Amino acid sequence: MIESESQIRVRYVETDAMGIVHHSNFVNWLELARIEMMDNIGLPYVELEKQDALMPVLEVYIKFLSPAYFDDRITIKLFVPECPNARCIVEYKIFRGTTLLAEAKTLHAFINRKGRPIKPPSIFLETMKSFF
Amino acid sequence: MIESESQIRVRYVETDAMGIVHHSNFVNWLELARIEMMDNIGLPYVELEKQDALMPVLEVYIKFLSPAYFDDRITIKLFVPECPNARCIVEYKIFRGTTLLAEAKTLHAFINRKGRPIKPPSIFLETMKSFF
Amino acid sequence: MIESESQIRVRYVETDAMGIVHHSNFVNWLELARIEMMDNIGLPYVELEKQDALMPVLEVYIKFLSPAYFDDRITIKLFVPECPNARCIVEYKIFRGTTLLAEAKTLHAFINRKGRPIKPPSIFLETMKSFF
Amino acid sequence: MIESESQIRVRYVETDAMGIVHHSNFVNWLELARIEMMDNIGLPYVELEKQDALMPVLEVYIKFLSPAYFDDRITIKLFVPECPNARCIVEYKIFRGTTLLAEAKTLHAFINRKGRPIKPPSIFLETMKSFF
Repeated sequence: MIESESQIRVRYVETDAMGIVHHSNFVNWLELARIEMMDNIGLPYVELEKQDALMPVLEVYIKFLSPAYFDDRITIKLFVPECPNARCIVEYKIFRGTTLLAEAKTLHAFINRKGRPIKPPSIFLETMKSFF
Repeated sequence: MIESESQIRVRYVETDAMGIVHHSNFVNWLELARIEMMDNIGLPYVELEKQDALMPVLEVYIKFLSPAYFDDRITIKLFVPECPNARCIVEYKIFRGTTLLAEAKTLHAFINRKGRPIKPPSIFLETMKSFF
Repeated sequence: MIESESQIRVRYVETDAMGIVHHSNFVNWLELARIEMMDNIGLPYVELEKQDALMPVLEVYIKFLSPAYFDDRITIKLFVPECPNARCIVEYKIFRGTTLLAEAKTLHAFINRKGRPIKPPSIFLETMKSFF
Repeated sequence: MIESESQIRVRYVETDAMGIVHHSNFVNWLELARIEMMDNIGLPYVELEKQDALMPVLEVYIKFLSPAYFDDRITIKLFVPECPNARCIVEYKIFRGTTLLAEAKTLHAFINRKGRPIKPPSIFLETMKSFF
């Protein structure tokens, strides 16, 4: 299994008139956690893009359990539960301290810059395999 | 069943370096569609907020089928499939013309400004009942 | 002089924990107003982009006079005070009803997709000239 | 003079279809730099808000010199050029490495949660004075 952990601090612009973080920002935090996971496994996302391999989000699911607030220090725990092949599942737990704020799941595949589905780059598959 | 339809035009700021709309914006489009649905049933969301009844998102799920681009005219078809009680399910289909771009589902409940769960305001339940 | 007017409705996601619209959204409203101005003069921005002519923002200035709130109906009055040549100045007044919320000014030039400065497309200059 | 330095890494969501960072995000980076400056001088912004003292942006000016890209490591150098009294001027230089990407300036005052102008809290004035 791949595990990765990211830290963020809530920005003022991420809050809304309920006084809490607007839920759409959690989607961006998941993205940030994926980028840092790929750094951590030695496969920076920018390198994949240079090989004309983009990794769009096919599905996103988030369950919100407790609100986040301005200036909160947030930990995003990311898991890749199974070795990705054509499709890649990523799971997340978002915490402030020990408080679980949200659970999430995303599904990904590869496309090229023209938007056509492509096979995952071999460097991606090989790197991923080494973790399972 | 409640049905509602919203029109939006993609803003440049909503695009990303893949040349398409960044997926997090779909979350905001769902919100906009809910606000307009509530206008359409005669229960503007601002009125609920004045009664200290907020309607946060508990869960969001989006399945992305086809990308949206800058300047696209987007139609969001919203459905409330069953009469909401303590919880409210909302479903969405997002189109550009006849092309289905995404399907989505959100779950909501009511809280007050202090973040405490509350019963749905009676005006909300009565209005909703009249549609089922 | 070119004049154009755009209408928007404040989205919930545009608010912040002060209970008002976060100031960064005004920057996006200016952009939206420019896009609609270009439609109005018969020169849609997407058409310019197809000719490999992009119009980035070189400078932006905004003076905030009064806050905007969720669900506000906002009018953006846009002016092009002088005939643009290599550079294009755009001015804005942002209102809710008769209340002036902000005044703004942006400066633009043309670049191509590689980021190189280019001359304005002749269709842009000719169209603009016809208004002065 | 007060000086402060903040580091950020460009998020994918901050890019646009030109392949660069959308200019509106620079406004948010300025905010983030102000928050960190206030931490650095021992006066966290959240503490001011607890005293019912908010510090909205009255004016913002940004001059864009060179684009930022996804994954760039950005340094924001912030300066408070003169001791703030009722109004507070903040200046910024935004770099990627040694490349100056933008220069900016914001103007601030204090209001309370009801939106009324207030005097700066004495703790703010005293702390600021100690730096000039």
